[in-house]
Amino acid sequence: MIPEITVYSPATIANLVCGFDVLGLALAEPADKMTIRLLSERTVIVRHTDDFGLPEEAARNCAGAALLAMVEELPANIGFEVVCEKRIKPGSGIGSSAASAAGAVVGANMLLDGKFSNNDLVRFAMSGEEVASGSRHADNIAPCIFGGITLIRSNHPVDIVAIDSPPLYVTVVHPQIEVKTSDARAILKKQIFLKDAVTQWGNVAGLVAGLMKGDYGLIGRSLEDVIVEPVRSILIPGFAELKSRCKAAGALGGGIAGAGPSVFMLSTSAAIAQSVAEAIDSVYGPMGIPYHTYITTISPQGVRVVDDGLC
Amino acid sequence: MIPEITVYSPATIANLVCGFDVLGLALAEPADKMTIRLLSERTVIVRHTDDFGLPEEAARNCAGAALLAMVEELPANIGFEVVCEKRIKPGSGIGSSAASAAGAVVGANMLLDGKFSNNDLVRFAMSGEEVASGSRHADNIAPCIFGGITLIRSNHPVDIVAIDSPPLYVTVVHPQIEVKTSDARAILKKQIFLKDAVTQWGNVAGLVAGLMKGDYGLIGRSLEDVIVEPVRSILIPGFAELKSRCKAAGALGGGIAGAGPSVFMLSTSAAIAQSVAEAIDSVYGPMGIPYHTYITTISPQGVRVVDDGLC
Repeated sequence: MIPEITVYSPATIANLVCGFDVLGLALAEPADKMTIRLLSERTVIVRHTDDFGLPEEAARNCAGAALLAMVEELPANIGFEVVCEKRIKPGSGIGSSAASAAGAVVGANMLLDGKFSNNDLVRFAMSGEEVASGSRHADNIAPCIFGGITLIRSNHPVDIVAIDSPPLYVTVVHPQIEVKTSDARAILKKQIFLKDAVTQWGNVAGLVAGLMKGDYGLIGRSLEDVIVEPVRSILIPGFAELKSRCKAAGALGGGIAGAGPSVFMLSTSAAIAQSVAEAIDSVYGPMGIPYHTYITTISPQGVRVVDDGLC
Repeated sequence: MIPEITVYSPATIANLVCGFDVLGLALAEPADKMTIRLLSERTVIVRHTDDFGLPEEAARNCAGAALLAMVEELPANIGFEVVCEKRIKPGSGIGSSAASAAGAVVGANMLLDGKFSNNDLVRFAMSGEEVASGSRHADNIAPCIFGGITLIRSNHPVDIVAIDSPPLYVTVVHPQIEVKTSDARAILKKQIFLKDAVTQWGNVAGLVAGLMKGDYGLIGRSLEDVIVEPVRSILIPGFAELKSRCKAAGALGGGIAGAGPSVFMLSTSAAIAQSVAEAIDSVYGPMGIPYHTYITTISPQGVRVVDDGLC
């Protein structure tokens, strides 16, 4: 019998408003379901059972590219097949490519009895992200692998820090429009004002301190982005109105999930998260934009096993 | 008898390498000694018993300007006299002006039975900083008033966050050269690269997380500044060599104290802090620059009472 494992790989939210390219969190749902099988030759085979039309050629697929990076550091008689049932819509901004890349290498590593460290897995999965966005960023991958809220202090070398947090509910809305991560990166200014950067790192520090102290007020005050949001929010219909109504409904704050177009809001209770979802309806309903809303929580776990085929 | 109070107002270190304009810490020593007396008319009188030659005209003196800002929000029959015995050399980079401004208003507020909040006191003291440097920054004032390590999440409105830390020893060297805060500000670039800002806020977040977790390794890795230090360090003789030898001697890391010229290093023990002081000697001794070295700790308290003349 071929050793195999099935995992759930969670959606993630990168940036967390002020923490562009360094902060991220794992969502309890949605999650991709992936089965990884150990093969006895250096090859990577990718199949999709979903209908998102993603390329199955390994080097052009996020899961495939991540596994190819991994097999390069393994003996020549080891390869993998991965069967992906994607439930996180590609291009939604909640880490669809990271879930593919991270789920594949975490599952594969389980089949290798944990040969690689989590930091190695982040490095492999970044090769998957590169296929999707052209950049080796880890801000979705880190929370997808580690769970919870993560800080990427450094990409080279990989230095990931778990950030504790008090209970938080997450309302996510995915307006069904396309925003390519590469486009969302291209519109950012390469240079910024030092005074804006100071405001931003004050907020980043405030958010980390607020999360670790469990200080909801401080978390809310720190969820401000003076650098990326003013540029990217123009790509998201009704963003200012959406944010304003969600905060009026009781959200601590929130903003663009990763590169968008999804928008997320953090709340202190399920009831408030529900009111926030209704505030979203009040903006997007009349606008006639198709959209989908989730209410979920932060997942303390990253990629997790569904069914262990080894036993 | 005229109500009076005598306080110690501590030296402080702003920026803490990566946290330009937002982070600061209070030192156990040196500290200015200040006596504040309550007067029965709206006037502010400043006297110095030290020989630093600072202006005694209230509006041109840090303590005086801070008290003038305070009396504007008090009834017309309240004023203050302040007698300053400065022990923190002006222009050293360890918050001499902030100590004057903060000590004066904290002492005055004690004479008013704590009428004003700490955030009000920060606001008044910023008027004192303005006299010294032309800018209303609070990164020395906040730790001087609150003690410990502080984050200024926002200046307008004032939002100060106490950051817990594990025990840390601080070695400070003050090369006896003049670096004006206004000059040290003027040489900074107004625009910076977004990619450098991302590196910086990753480190700021890492430093806050490291301090709050008591993770010395993370604190050390986060003490990197890719924005301000590369520009300002050219004003400090032998900076690169100094930093390199201090780290080799066991310091977690460190950098320019505020706008300089003092340089500080953090260590996990008094013995290492002493070795770091010897590493400083090995660089500055042969260079023939007059310098003064302190070994101290972080003070959990800010401005503190010496002798309460009220009773």
